[in-house]
Amino acid sequence: MDQQKNKKGIASLLGSQAALYTDLYQLTMAQGFFLSGKTGTPAVYDYTFRENPFQGGYVVFAGISDVLELLAQFRFDDEAIRYLHSLKFRDDFLQYLQQFRFQGTVHTMREGEIVFPGEPLVRVEGNLIESQLIETMLLNILNFESLIATKASRIRFAAGNRKITDFGLRRAQGLGGILASKAAMIGGVDTTSSVFAGYHFGLEVAGTQAHSWIQSFSDELTAFRRFAELYPDNCVLVVDTYGTLKSGIPNAITVARELETKGKRLTGVRLDSGDLASLSKKVRSMLDAAGLRYVQIVASNQLDEYLIYNLTQQNAPIDAYGVGTKLISANGSPALEGIYKISELNGQPSMKVTDNFLKTTMPGKKHVLRFFDDKDMFDCDGVALETEPQIESLYHPSFVGHQRNVGKLKVHPLLTKMMGQGKLLLPLPSVQESEHYASDRFVLLPMDYKRFEKPLQYKVGFSTLLMNLRTELYKRLQQIPISR
Amino acid sequence: MDQQKNKKGIASLLGSQAALYTDLYQLTMAQGFFLSGKTGTPAVYDYTFRENPFQGGYVVFAGISDVLELLAQFRFDDEAIRYLHSLKFRDDFLQYLQQFRFQGTVHTMREGEIVFPGEPLVRVEGNLIESQLIETMLLNILNFESLIATKASRIRFAAGNRKITDFGLRRAQGLGGILASKAAMIGGVDTTSSVFAGYHFGLEVAGTQAHSWIQSFSDELTAFRRFAELYPDNCVLVVDTYGTLKSGIPNAITVARELETKGKRLTGVRLDSGDLASLSKKVRSMLDAAGLRYVQIVASNQLDEYLIYNLTQQNAPIDAYGVGTKLISANGSPALEGIYKISELNGQPSMKVTDNFLKTTMPGKKHVLRFFDDKDMFDCDGVALETEPQIESLYHPSFVGHQRNVGKLKVHPLLTKMMGQGKLLLPLPSVQESEHYASDRFVLLPMDYKRFEKPLQYKVGFSTLLMNLRTELYKRLQQIPISR
Repeated sequence: MDQQKNKKGIASLLGSQAALYTDLYQLTMAQGFFLSGKTGTPAVYDYTFRENPFQGGYVVFAGISDVLELLAQFRFDDEAIRYLHSLKFRDDFLQYLQQFRFQGTVHTMREGEIVFPGEPLVRVEGNLIESQLIETMLLNILNFESLIATKASRIRFAAGNRKITDFGLRRAQGLGGILASKAAMIGGVDTTSSVFAGYHFGLEVAGTQAHSWIQSFSDELTAFRRFAELYPDNCVLVVDTYGTLKSGIPNAITVARELETKGKRLTGVRLDSGDLASLSKKVRSMLDAAGLRYVQIVASNQLDEYLIYNLTQQNAPIDAYGVGTKLISANGSPALEGIYKISELNGQPSMKVTDNFLKTTMPGKKHVLRFFDDKDMFDCDGVALETEPQIESLYHPSFVGHQRNVGKLKVHPLLTKMMGQGKLLLPLPSVQESEHYASDRFVLLPMDYKRFEKPLQYKVGFSTLLMNLRTELYKRLQQIPISR
Repeated sequence: MDQQKNKKGIASLLGSQAALYTDLYQLTMAQGFFLSGKTGTPAVYDYTFRENPFQGGYVVFAGISDVLELLAQFRFDDEAIRYLHSLKFRDDFLQYLQQFRFQGTVHTMREGEIVFPGEPLVRVEGNLIESQLIETMLLNILNFESLIATKASRIRFAAGNRKITDFGLRRAQGLGGILASKAAMIGGVDTTSSVFAGYHFGLEVAGTQAHSWIQSFSDELTAFRRFAELYPDNCVLVVDTYGTLKSGIPNAITVARELETKGKRLTGVRLDSGDLASLSKKVRSMLDAAGLRYVQIVASNQLDEYLIYNLTQQNAPIDAYGVGTKLISANGSPALEGIYKISELNGQPSMKVTDNFLKTTMPGKKHVLRFFDDKDMFDCDGVALETEPQIESLYHPSFVGHQRNVGKLKVHPLLTKMMGQGKLLLPLPSVQESEHYASDRFVLLPMDYKRFEKPLQYKVGFSTLLMNLRTELYKRLQQIPISR
């Protein structure tokens, strides 16, 4: 069956009150803009992030399909209006919200793109109210799905082509687990244990048995036998309930031989405790000695990219991994600190200065270019004003001397116009399509950016015109009178 | 308005497919139990956790109201059945699921209770299928809400009686933010910025303005003036868009004086960057020198319990905190590793042994007692068989010599029967009631367990009969024949 057909999507999850998935101040400000005659003021916003999570070298961009799906049907229904009325919003503003539709234009990186700190990943153009009202929802979804897709990509990198299943729902951050299972697939996980995520997003689900199955029978062998009888074509036995080597594996071998007499093959055994490197070697030997080379070894228990990488280094004969807590909760960097900031207002470039220079934003309506080296691998990214023709040089945003000449490199633009005046212009990719795209692009990222220990930092440079614009605007903002 | 009246609850979030909020293996095993004639086999499960998060000394138990709400209306609707049919479950089993209701009995700690590693927090009694099918949902919700309530409690402890608002939705783990805002309130946060959580759980919402408000006007003073005009009764100005001391505060003072001429008072200023300790002192001086002692200072920007504790130690004159990323993503311990294990099957005590002794579970139908010292503070907890009369001594689960005599201490049982045969027996507490209970109980926890640096570990001991039962059962399991 094509599980994708079941897809319900995020809108069905948030329900008809999805427009309330926001911070109160967005609505307070929106009412203020409404009452200040700014409903028609055009604004441009950029979504970007400052730092790679997990001390890594890249991020896998994910979540944009969900955001676009929500934007396309963004509205305040009667129930939402009633709730906002109870919060004392004014009637004239609520009448405006009742008619409100998102009619902005969205340029975005493709779902699954490999992206880097400092570059705009999404550009939203609309009026001041519509571009502001969607901020919290957009940040919440893009920050989290990109974070989990990145964690999954690291685990995929460590696991090579071994199968990976997401087991995380029970340790997920509550309902966050729903989107996490989907994002993990975009990042390279094969299947999920989460039936709910499978149902909502058309993901392939997987899962056989837990220790409680074993404990529910008089002894382990009886439990194994019964399971093999019920599921002869997909039988993975968890072997550590009473001791892996002395009980679980001998019993699994007995059952595998019994399956053979019926023309069936035991799919695998799952190791869920103990030292997986040494244990998997012993288990492989025992299975091989019994003539069961085809029985796969599945490993789980507190796995992450570092442990899996070490197991690979130690040649642990493991065929598939079940990854739970550390994937689903993005262990190591539990949040991606993406931001969404005004870059143009009323046709004029805008920036935020603040007391911290590193938090200064980059003004103007921008696009992003990816440059390729002579082996067609990613070389560097450039951010430029949308109106700029060809780019010759890129500059580091804060170290003035750093410059890179890119005039002779092959180049592709990264932002695609996916939504125009609130209408989707292109079909949203399926999870499987995004997973393939992420995987294809990951191949083009040189190894130095992929390693876990102090990876090389990918260069994102800014064009001459953009650097000049920032300097000019910064000077102008310094001259604004303080009080009059 | 009584915001609690708006309460929709978790069931409306998960929708009528809430029963699919599970791991596939639960359903695979359930079908196996069904086909093995085990639908009537009685089982007892315990929910417990092994280690305090954040290297702390306690956990605030939360999420049980959501679990009970879901259990009370647990069913597989036609849509869920259709989906499971597409996953190739058998028709006879799906017919069974169509009739399926949760009819188990649940004893539980009260929402907001201060709890400790190793003790059963929830005891579920039902048949093997119903007690198993709910595992993933129960773990997902209790693990996460208890984690966030605990983080919030630590932040509340550091902040003393200063106001705390949850700003986290944009950095939350996706939809996890919805339950997180509620759990944060149980742990002691006052208000949330999340309109969606406010709508679903009747929470008090708060929020005024962001930098984009300031950037949308020709200059900061104009932006401040307009906001004060629109919201004269709840006006908190964010003052770091162009520089806190040279621009934000002077402009805020101007606006505060203008408000005074209209008989109004500026509520506060919000600091969102820079060194909050030194900056808040300078800001306080400037405001006081302008005769604006009543203007509150709100601080935000990457705050957690450690930073807030340090700000308190440095006497930073901050009146309220906005806490975001580090609260909502449970920075430091992104998952609570709670487990749900069989303790009794078919009337017989059961335990899981595994290759790791520390993962061995405690058999039998148990209850939990809290002992109080002579100042009526928490002294220690005891776990005993439900059938045991008075407890004289408690034992450490692995250090055999450690014993504590508790015969003379005041004692209260901690587990309450909240659900009998699938029916709620008591009304579920409101978020506000659970918050009060947590706060009242926290007062009774001695200081040594509350500190952030190497807190004392609270003693959870086991009764003589329970220790004997475990030893006896362990011996019996060692004697099970491996293969025949």
